[in-house]
Amino acid sequence: MRATLFDLERTIRQRRDADPDQSYVAKLTARGRAKIAQKVGEEAVETVIAAMASDRQGAIGESADLLFHLLVLLVDLDISLDDVLDELDRREGVSGISEKASRKGD
Amino acid sequence: MRATLFDLERTIRQRRDADPDQSYVAKLTARGRAKIAQKVGEEAVETVIAAMASDRQGAIGESADLLFHLLVLLVDLDISLDDVLDELDRREGVSGISEKASRKGD
Amino acid sequence: MRATLFDLERTIRQRRDADPDQSYVAKLTARGRAKIAQKVGEEAVETVIAAMASDRQGAIGESADLLFHLLVLLVDLDISLDDVLDELDRREGVSGISEKASRKGD
Amino acid sequence: MRATLFDLERTIRQRRDADPDQSYVAKLTARGRAKIAQKVGEEAVETVIAAMASDRQGAIGESADLLFHLLVLLVDLDISLDDVLDELDRREGVSGISEKASRKGD
Repeated sequence: MRATLFDLERTIRQRRDADPDQSYVAKLTARGRAKIAQKVGEEAVETVIAAMASDRQGAIGESADLLFHLLVLLVDLDISLDDVLDELDRREGVSGISEKASRKGD
Repeated sequence: MRATLFDLERTIRQRRDADPDQSYVAKLTARGRAKIAQKVGEEAVETVIAAMASDRQGAIGESADLLFHLLVLLVDLDISLDDVLDELDRREGVSGISEKASRKGD
Repeated sequence: MRATLFDLERTIRQRRDADPDQSYVAKLTARGRAKIAQKVGEEAVETVIAAMASDRQGAIGESADLLFHLLVLLVDLDISLDDVLDELDRREGVSGISEKASRKGD
Repeated sequence: MRATLFDLERTIRQRRDADPDQSYVAKLTARGRAKIAQKVGEEAVETVIAAMASDRQGAIGESADLLFHLLVLLVDLDISLDDVLDELDRREGVSGISEKASRKGD
């Protein structure tokens, strides 16, 4: 059975305190929040570039990288995936287009 | 019950062909892939900034925006969330840290 | 005669303390460093997208926006354009490719 | 005497066709526009993060990296620094804040 993002979130939480020599999550976490945030930004840039190049396989890989590093960042901020899904849920009630307009001040 | 990313993906697919005056997804999609990709990049930047500012509530909101626009971009590329989760699954078998090293050529 | 980036830097320094209703620089500065940094990130994303779309005119416009907002950010950090050019100069002595390799730890 | 961005632009143009084993510019250029654009996006992310961390020295280094890679991208697009400065000049005539408002449709 395919793992979900919740499984991935749990794995990330478990690996944070592992030996940085054995775990990428532990190693990245040890480098600090700025480094994790940097990875999120970089993977987003790579996703954008793959999309613009119509590189479907590349976009799948970069989106996977982006989701993975976003989860590492959220865990570092002590934010759960549920917190983010609740926020998405909260917006669902409002009509997408008007809610977006009201949300963005600029 | 909380909606999942799969529910959100389904909603986005349904709204793509709606009236752009009524749906944010339809309006954004009509503006083209470059505009959707731009939103993904911008929301990632905002997520990074909220994280660096230790703005927990901001990071939840920006992560929600990022996930939402990433799903719109994936739908536009005809990539399913399952495709991305399969990719994450595929990597899971390999030890996180070595796999990452082998994956990134630079 | 064409203005240089130094002229632009001087103009930005002068406008920072102007009336936010009259000056974009003053208005953006008043919103804080996070907002200025966000603009730098966003304009970089737009430059990347224009480049990937081979949109030459778009790339000129977005690069202009990127340089402008980068200067606003540098001024906000009390960094002069000279500080950045000195840093570029310092690297020039070293062979480009090896220096780059030594500079980037990852 | 300190080199200017024009000197750097000239150096980049000269090195593009050098041996990729000897020149970082030649090596990066050989990897294609997507890779150059990726570097621009990544350095912008690092500049944003250094600014948010109030890391003045880091911001100087990352801004230097960003300017350098932006020039490599512009050269790859056959855009001169003069083209971008002309665009900045063109906007100068208009009051900063109103011009910005008229320029940005969204």
